[in-house]
Amino acid sequence: MAHEKTIWPGSTQLAPVPAVLVGCGDGKTFKYNLITVAWAGTVCSDPAMLAIAVRPERFSFAPISQLKEFTVNLPPVSLAAELDRCGVVSGRDCDKFELCHLTPVAGEKVSAPLVAECPVALECRVTQPIELGSHTLFLAEILAVQVQSDLIDDKGKFDIDRAHLIAYAHGHYYQLGECIGHFGYSVRRKPGSIVRK
Amino acid sequence: MAHEKTIWPGSTQLAPVPAVLVGCGDGKTFKYNLITVAWAGTVCSDPAMLAIAVRPERFSFAPISQLKEFTVNLPPVSLAAELDRCGVVSGRDCDKFELCHLTPVAGEKVSAPLVAECPVALECRVTQPIELGSHTLFLAEILAVQVQSDLIDDKGKFDIDRAHLIAYAHGHYYQLGECIGHFGYSVRRKPGSIVRK
Repeated sequence: MAHEKTIWPGSTQLAPVPAVLVGCGDGKTFKYNLITVAWAGTVCSDPAMLAIAVRPERFSFAPISQLKEFTVNLPPVSLAAELDRCGVVSGRDCDKFELCHLTPVAGEKVSAPLVAECPVALECRVTQPIELGSHTLFLAEILAVQVQSDLIDDKGKFDIDRAHLIAYAHGHYYQLGECIGHFGYSVRRKPGSIVRK
Repeated sequence: MAHEKTIWPGSTQLAPVPAVLVGCGDGKTFKYNLITVAWAGTVCSDPAMLAIAVRPERFSFAPISQLKEFTVNLPPVSLAAELDRCGVVSGRDCDKFELCHLTPVAGEKVSAPLVAECPVALECRVTQPIELGSHTLFLAEILAVQVQSDLIDDKGKFDIDRAHLIAYAHGHYYQLGECIGHFGYSVRRKPGSIVRK
């Protein structure tokens, strides 16, 4: 069914988007820090790449742009308050790991810290920063992924339902709800459909 | 609590991500078409910008790269099967609007079609294509947003809970579940916390 529409000026209404804890710093030149980012997305499958957008005035901007490494940690619902807090307080004023009782862990491929309490963490190396306006977009290659071992099932597949990930939409955090289907389900349940050749 | 981790090679494990219907074509040089995209994200607040990643071999690649315009339509849960189907069938073989009983609507700012049945649609103009490997990333400015009028509340705010948007994570589509809190809730409920200056 179509509905009457209201036209608004362009604004950041894409939703839902991820809400992630980005880890940065190397513990030497730059202290370990966390920044909450919702302007994040996958940008390429091969090589595996993602992008995060960060304002230059943020405390995490210098370590990310100079060290060219960061981690993307997917928090579970039980860490929603910590996720939110890391987007509001600044690493200039506090140690966010300490404030939020989170544990920095060394990466396999990068010097930036992972968050031990997150079920999934992606280790990323910046390939290209792009200044866009309020934000600089960091394109990055995903070098390694650390996943919580007890969430991997017998077939070696990550059991995402037990990870209790968080979505962000228009200023609000959401739990993931009911699973509607998997990629390709609409054609598999209707064998007569045209399938892409 | 920290957990034992398993280390995997880099892969596209960022989740949840949006799952959107991208509208393209102008109805003249290129026929109207739809493509389902999960590699999408907001990349800048001012100017409002997003990015989508598309494989060059996809039928929608030529209209997007040549016309430099597309729309991003956020489907409700009731259109999950259509969303999935538009990611599996190709516009080379069929008219996806017709196949899925969706209605193309003219944009205010772009020649690409909006999907009338989607509660939110973003009209986008490509500012920069970036070849990354399997995918080309299209950075785009969001020129206008069309929202379903009856989902705007008395205060002029979009009622996202009634839009029933879809998240995509590791190959599965999800409804948004319970709202956990709004941006800043963790510090507002604890007035003693350090707030970013």
